[in-house]
Amino acid sequence: MRMYDVIANKKQGRALTGEEIRFFVEGFTKAEIPDYQASALLMAICLQGMDAEETAALTDAMLHSGDVADLSSIPGVKVDKHSTGGVGDKTSLIIGPITASCGVPVAKMSGRGLGHTGGTIDKLESIPGLRTEIDPESFKAIVRETGIAIIGQSGDIAPADKKLYALRDVTATIDSVPLIASSIMSKKLAAGSDAILLDVKTGSGAFMKTLEGSIELAKAMVSIGVRSGRRVMALITDMDTPLGSAIGNALEVQEVVDTLRGNGPADLEGVCIELASYMLLLAGAAEDAAKCKTLARNAISSGSAYGKLLDMCRAQGGDESVLRDGFTKAEVQSLYTAAAGGYITHMDAELCGMASLALGAGRARKEDSIDYSAGILLLKKTGDRVDAGEPLAQLHTSSQAKLEEAGKILTSAIAIGEAPPPPAKPIYAVVTHDKVEMM
Amino acid sequence: MRMYDVIANKKQGRALTGEEIRFFVEGFTKAEIPDYQASALLMAICLQGMDAEETAALTDAMLHSGDVADLSSIPGVKVDKHSTGGVGDKTSLIIGPITASCGVPVAKMSGRGLGHTGGTIDKLESIPGLRTEIDPESFKAIVRETGIAIIGQSGDIAPADKKLYALRDVTATIDSVPLIASSIMSKKLAAGSDAILLDVKTGSGAFMKTLEGSIELAKAMVSIGVRSGRRVMALITDMDTPLGSAIGNALEVQEVVDTLRGNGPADLEGVCIELASYMLLLAGAAEDAAKCKTLARNAISSGSAYGKLLDMCRAQGGDESVLRDGFTKAEVQSLYTAAAGGYITHMDAELCGMASLALGAGRARKEDSIDYSAGILLLKKTGDRVDAGEPLAQLHTSSQAKLEEAGKILTSAIAIGEAPPPPAKPIYAVVTHDKVEMM
Repeated sequence: MRMYDVIANKKQGRALTGEEIRFFVEGFTKAEIPDYQASALLMAICLQGMDAEETAALTDAMLHSGDVADLSSIPGVKVDKHSTGGVGDKTSLIIGPITASCGVPVAKMSGRGLGHTGGTIDKLESIPGLRTEIDPESFKAIVRETGIAIIGQSGDIAPADKKLYALRDVTATIDSVPLIASSIMSKKLAAGSDAILLDVKTGSGAFMKTLEGSIELAKAMVSIGVRSGRRVMALITDMDTPLGSAIGNALEVQEVVDTLRGNGPADLEGVCIELASYMLLLAGAAEDAAKCKTLARNAISSGSAYGKLLDMCRAQGGDESVLRDGFTKAEVQSLYTAAAGGYITHMDAELCGMASLALGAGRARKEDSIDYSAGILLLKKTGDRVDAGEPLAQLHTSSQAKLEEAGKILTSAIAIGEAPPPPAKPIYAVVTHDKVEMM
Repeated sequence: MRMYDVIANKKQGRALTGEEIRFFVEGFTKAEIPDYQASALLMAICLQGMDAEETAALTDAMLHSGDVADLSSIPGVKVDKHSTGGVGDKTSLIIGPITASCGVPVAKMSGRGLGHTGGTIDKLESIPGLRTEIDPESFKAIVRETGIAIIGQSGDIAPADKKLYALRDVTATIDSVPLIASSIMSKKLAAGSDAILLDVKTGSGAFMKTLEGSIELAKAMVSIGVRSGRRVMALITDMDTPLGSAIGNALEVQEVVDTLRGNGPADLEGVCIELASYMLLLAGAAEDAAKCKTLARNAISSGSAYGKLLDMCRAQGGDESVLRDGFTKAEVQSLYTAAAGGYITHMDAELCGMASLALGAGRARKEDSIDYSAGILLLKKTGDRVDAGEPLAQLHTSSQAKLEEAGKILTSAIAIGEAPPPPAKPIYAVVTHDKVEMM
């Protein structure tokens, strides 16, 4: 087999065979196939597409390029959850404890944030002492004992994906549904859970800006999962506006605590109840979505989900006092006020994420360090009526100097108009292997 | 400007600006843009196309990446001719002398053969002593004195094209009309002639297998030339069957001599009269195609074109006695006979070229050496009636061992059926900047 012919076949719009796809992935991972041939194929895939069978074969080849977790020593149906990434998205830290407190084991590997989107691992590490680098056996022991652990990616998970992603990143070949779907699913399948709930974000703060694109991505990922014998479904959720009020690591963990104690923002709690109920449904915790929703609500109102968060924090070596008593606040806090009165018609999630980045809450480059206390507390959200001069957000940072840039970005992020915008839906659609249900 | 954005723009189907195209060509030539980004862009160009303006800008950027010949010291309208390559295509060596003998200076740079197609320079070098590496000043002096010189590419012509072509060759991105057209035209424009006649081959032995594809390529090349202020037109000529009877270097030069002496095969002479008359028309030698055709015919019947070939041979240091008295013959000559009787319904030009290659007439790799006396003389052509056992071709080679492979290839090249095939047209269309005239 020659890589030239594999490229030529895809260029001409033909479906690649499983053998061709494995030849490419294995050869590229071993550096036997040069970058310039790989990037030509990636561009051909972007423009000619891949069918469900090809996408599944690509996922499978990347999945088997590295370590595959074996969670069979944990009893029960293990569930995992993946979000395509957003701004202010702390749902994993809320629905993980909810699900675990209902008796469904959660063995989750999460990522770090990069660019304008945050990462669950960074958020967890704002809790002093909490370890996210835990070896596989200890990880499984924690899940067996406390029902939940959330750690960083350990071992050599899908190295082919890592290498391909780096090439896609510099050759404008990120933006392809089969490539995105296979990249995500190769890592999720390697993480070993039996059931996976996908939270596909849509809107200005999401990778997929349109509902159609988000549904297409969700269908591709669900199809891959089902072909691999896992229980998989996807929710399409809103990321046009940041989720909840907090953006930034410690600020978001505080909001997680508030939500698990029953005092969270309504939009955030609503989405988390939905996500948690579908995770419970996938795990078979109750027979229908309505009953699972009741389980999820009870987990919050009874305090059991909050207790589970504390259990997990302790098991991973974290100082739970910050969860009980609050985090150390940022040195500089400043109010960002409305320049004019009216209704907030749009609050661009991506730009809010950039503003938070400017305050020190994230990394522009991988090697940057994070100011855990930095970020934004939104005091108003899309649809709210505001007066000129009224505070819209509280900015948290380490120095006055960072306020100016963040303020400038926020000004372009927040649009104020005369009429209120149409209300946004928290959840747009539920995608299962055989249907798309619009909400 | 970032290469990433250039790739992304083309991927999304947008036309690139002249600035973007120059940025890419200059950066890639200087190795500031890596191969993996260039190949992603090339694949995006293959699949999204390029409009006439982009193709002209790409040609211009490649043309100016190296030396540009200045032929202004040669008086008159200098004409050049380019063929997209074929099997048995010795037309340059016939129409060059015809045109020059009519007073139109021909200053031509030609290429070597690779794979199944022959190259004019290899054919010329079968004449003992004839030099094809000649410095620019001597080249121009020969054209001024004898009216014609045909040499190998000298200097650093379009190095960007050379580098890009090497990358296209290994990334399945050869097959794209704007990329082929700009590659050919960047070199032709750099060669400096005022007028260029393009001979675009179509059929089984040509790069473009279909008439539609050949016309599209011809239109793209004519458009580039006209945008650069040159006089350019194209003929679409048949390359389904080898042109003339001879395939192989010295055998073809002998056929050139025969044709210029008025004893050539009718198909070859016909095409050469057509091509020469359009070259004369482009140069303004007479006011219409019919009058130019008369000039071309007279150049053969008067012997002036043959005299011009001898002049050129002498001026380039060649031993003209082989042209007068014949070449040294190959050591082994063998007849290839028909396995069955009937009509020759197809004679695959590409496979005939491969058979000639097997006899030693060409190079499979750049570093291979050529047996100038090797090749094939076709005794029958498509449409001829043959009996079982009747000789179809005479094979010329250096050893018995090579006959077997060549014979096998010829067997698959020549189809014999019960009914004669429809007659082929030597010329299918004439393409000028504003119209396509079907013949």
